[in-house]
Amino acid sequence: MIILIQCADQVGLVASVSKVTANAGLNIISMREHVNIADNRFYLRLEVADENFQPDLVKAELSNALPQNSSIFMNTASKKKIAILVTKEYHCLGDILLRNYFNTLGASVECVIGNHETLRPLTEKFEIPFHFVGHNDISKERFETELVQTLSHYSFDYIVLAKFMRILSPDFIAAFPHRIINIHHSFLPAFIGANPYRQAHERGVKLIGATAHFVTDTLDEGPIIAQQIIPVNHAHSVKDMVTLGKEVEEAVLAKALQLVLQDRVIVDQNKTVVFEN
Amino acid sequence: MIILIQCADQVGLVASVSKVTANAGLNIISMREHVNIADNRFYLRLEVADENFQPDLVKAELSNALPQNSSIFMNTASKKKIAILVTKEYHCLGDILLRNYFNTLGASVECVIGNHETLRPLTEKFEIPFHFVGHNDISKERFETELVQTLSHYSFDYIVLAKFMRILSPDFIAAFPHRIINIHHSFLPAFIGANPYRQAHERGVKLIGATAHFVTDTLDEGPIIAQQIIPVNHAHSVKDMVTLGKEVEEAVLAKALQLVLQDRVIVDQNKTVVFEN
Amino acid sequence: MIILIQCADQVGLVASVSKVTANAGLNIISMREHVNIADNRFYLRLEVADENFQPDLVKAELSNALPQNSSIFMNTASKKKIAILVTKEYHCLGDILLRNYFNTLGASVECVIGNHETLRPLTEKFEIPFHFVGHNDISKERFETELVQTLSHYSFDYIVLAKFMRILSPDFIAAFPHRIINIHHSFLPAFIGANPYRQAHERGVKLIGATAHFVTDTLDEGPIIAQQIIPVNHAHSVKDMVTLGKEVEEAVLAKALQLVLQDRVIVDQNKTVVFEN
Amino acid sequence: MIILIQCADQVGLVASVSKVTANAGLNIISMREHVNIADNRFYLRLEVADENFQPDLVKAELSNALPQNSSIFMNTASKKKIAILVTKEYHCLGDILLRNYFNTLGASVECVIGNHETLRPLTEKFEIPFHFVGHNDISKERFETELVQTLSHYSFDYIVLAKFMRILSPDFIAAFPHRIINIHHSFLPAFIGANPYRQAHERGVKLIGATAHFVTDTLDEGPIIAQQIIPVNHAHSVKDMVTLGKEVEEAVLAKALQLVLQDRVIVDQNKTVVFEN
Repeated sequence: MIILIQCADQVGLVASVSKVTANAGLNIISMREHVNIADNRFYLRLEVADENFQPDLVKAELSNALPQNSSIFMNTASKKKIAILVTKEYHCLGDILLRNYFNTLGASVECVIGNHETLRPLTEKFEIPFHFVGHNDISKERFETELVQTLSHYSFDYIVLAKFMRILSPDFIAAFPHRIINIHHSFLPAFIGANPYRQAHERGVKLIGATAHFVTDTLDEGPIIAQQIIPVNHAHSVKDMVTLGKEVEEAVLAKALQLVLQDRVIVDQNKTVVFEN
Repeated sequence: MIILIQCADQVGLVASVSKVTANAGLNIISMREHVNIADNRFYLRLEVADENFQPDLVKAELSNALPQNSSIFMNTASKKKIAILVTKEYHCLGDILLRNYFNTLGASVECVIGNHETLRPLTEKFEIPFHFVGHNDISKERFETELVQTLSHYSFDYIVLAKFMRILSPDFIAAFPHRIINIHHSFLPAFIGANPYRQAHERGVKLIGATAHFVTDTLDEGPIIAQQIIPVNHAHSVKDMVTLGKEVEEAVLAKALQLVLQDRVIVDQNKTVVFEN
Repeated sequence: MIILIQCADQVGLVASVSKVTANAGLNIISMREHVNIADNRFYLRLEVADENFQPDLVKAELSNALPQNSSIFMNTASKKKIAILVTKEYHCLGDILLRNYFNTLGASVECVIGNHETLRPLTEKFEIPFHFVGHNDISKERFETELVQTLSHYSFDYIVLAKFMRILSPDFIAAFPHRIINIHHSFLPAFIGANPYRQAHERGVKLIGATAHFVTDTLDEGPIIAQQIIPVNHAHSVKDMVTLGKEVEEAVLAKALQLVLQDRVIVDQNKTVVFEN
Repeated sequence: MIILIQCADQVGLVASVSKVTANAGLNIISMREHVNIADNRFYLRLEVADENFQPDLVKAELSNALPQNSSIFMNTASKKKIAILVTKEYHCLGDILLRNYFNTLGASVECVIGNHETLRPLTEKFEIPFHFVGHNDISKERFETELVQTLSHYSFDYIVLAKFMRILSPDFIAAFPHRIINIHHSFLPAFIGANPYRQAHERGVKLIGATAHFVTDTLDEGPIIAQQIIPVNHAHSVKDMVTLGKEVEEAVLAKALQLVLQDRVIVDQNKTVVFEN
């Protein structure tokens, strides 16, 4: 079992937490603690051996042992669930569907929603429900209402924007706080906005990248989960960069999902604490 | 010997060039050609075995064989020379001085000019002349006049800004076109301007980088030669990022110098063609 | 069109080749030449704009212009074809099938042959023929005869061993010289042989890798096309390393296929010359 | 202050340790715990804010709180010290001397001992004592006796073999257990033994690497601290690979030293637990 804790820092927090787990007979296999001294914030990730114990009791005791307003997350045995939003590009979706099919994703894909029909055949090959929600000729408000209605038929922990090329409204985003994960096709904060690969080509950069982040209501400004880059050179056209970029996008989204699904990411304000293996 | 050619593209250029080298009995050991189709530009790098031949004659024949306005560069046997401008940080300068001392730089360091005295002792350990040119209490114009006067005592192919923290005027830069190499402490174009590591820390990025580029009159906008990155995380303070950043800065400047000194870089407009090994 | 040439080195080869292409009115978009001085070998890759021309004529003229025993390869307009051999692991196959389905592989997958039935469902989702050729209770000779018979129904340029866990005999390999591409689950030549990840774990290495290579009759000794690594640490079990290793295996096989399918790889003896972009 | 603990695993260890630190009023800024379940080993790294406290008392209480045979390391405020052994190559030594001179090494260099005079001038530029201990015309036993005698004039925490090209005897090594750090010019365990770059060139690998490790009495088999790689290709001669290799050697030794000097490395048997930032 994984326990994630976030609270104001004070002396003795690790002692308090580990006293609770020791009393419950839980062996801590892996532990990561980080204190942000400037902001007086305490972050903890515990991985304990799965023995017989009462999670509710442990959580209650942790709650008593920790300061008020502490955030305590204990993952349950049940597999996490995700919903995926896509447009036309297959690379990120394909990678996720494959891992899902072979049970290596660490979550189950509940549904795929596209604002185009392009990826229906791929999705349905893997017996995952695909829903088309078009955005043409309707207001953004209406579009998002339909998205929400479609999503409402499923339970899920996270919404993954696997190259979903519509900008979501603050209202939509606020409905799923820290639960929407996006892959952005640039090494943020370079090349914010449209056509990052064209911008990169014109600037003559020697590296291009991609950024996976939680979505907040400020475009491309949410807490970053993972970033990677790939070298490019003068011989790469914009089209080549788009192609290469897809490789990085797929890789970085896969890594971010793994980090999130393994409960290695704590979000605080506009940043993440990522306890990588 | 290395030959670098840049001109408008047309059919038969490689044939024309290689006919000249074959007639001169030169064996081409390594050849790289690139055509930028969109802009109709032709770039060529030839490495020929150093046999007995008349460089001037070969150059004249190449000139005849190529379109007007072709740029033809043939490196001479003599070692390249560099002048270095620094402020207070030692890491880039130290690396260059060490390579220079052990003859592995591929150039000779002629002098170091500092706008602080900080790096005089290090420089003089290696018996390289150090000149202090202060910027306090004088106009930028006067400061740069003194820089130019100091530089005028030396012959050099390139000026290397090895963490030189003053912004040079367009006039100064224009005097040394494509001959000033700078190391910028960010993965351009992200975090242009002051305190890039503070900006990076506030944004919570997971990679920081550095960029080596030729200096043009637009700040941080010159043709990029090389870029590299290093991973960071939540545990890195701004100070840690500065420390890590220095490692990348040193590495990327060393790489850029190697590329330039081995005549692997052709500059065209605001971009470089880099024929890496 | 791509032209690959390999022959003994002598002065004037580039001139001879480029005279032929210039006479045919072909514009060279990209050119890479490398001479191995120690072995006196000449390697050339030409990318010429696809204009109206007679490939047979150009090839005949190149043949006349070059020394005897030159190897001249000119790719045809037709798409390359591959056959895939697999055992049970899905990651490499899945990646290739996805790219094939969306026409981004640069080749067409003609068939998949498995010595287990495990990957039939995945393969058939993408409407690619899957053939089971079992190895139990039969001799290796018989097993390979059946493989060859199955393959004989298809035309293909390359056989890709996408985690095919049987060792092929020299006879089988000799039938497809430089046409069998394998992904080996280690950073060769470290950890040759069985259980490389267990070996890596026991040795406590901090990086694990994968190697894509052409198969020759010496196990794990064929010409290397591409290698990549991924960091690991004390917290990774053998099982974790296997999981991480699959990511590298998939990535490195994808890269090697791209290099080969774009005609960027020349094989000479036990090494490759790889003209990367 | 950093505390490193290593002992047999049991439930409640983190609670015991953190109770001691909490009672002493120490705030834990950063904590890393790892349990090797297969071997039932517990590893802990604590970074506590430096407040007024009695280290001896804390250590005694930790000792009481932990199982017998626990290894408890608490770093003292005093700066670590290193002795360096070299032969002729300057790159690793130069990098360390520069960092030492500018107080960024995290240790102080006490002396440099060379079995050649080559690096005396470089060392003495930085006012570090250089001792020549020749190996010609004397037995290995005698050579090592002189090394030990020379070292005996200095106090040091670690001996760094910065490209020291003599193989040390088990007796010498046993005198400094887990205190000798070597940089090996290959990506171990590939290319063990002599001329790794020649071996790499002949094999046609696409990556070369370097390995920093503690020295044990089995050649090239000690616990690995850090490894890195650099890409190479067909165009790199053995000499080019040696040159490139030096860049990696310098980088990987610098990283390993940083990890060790920041008390991030716990050695257990033939492996390390490295708690990287």
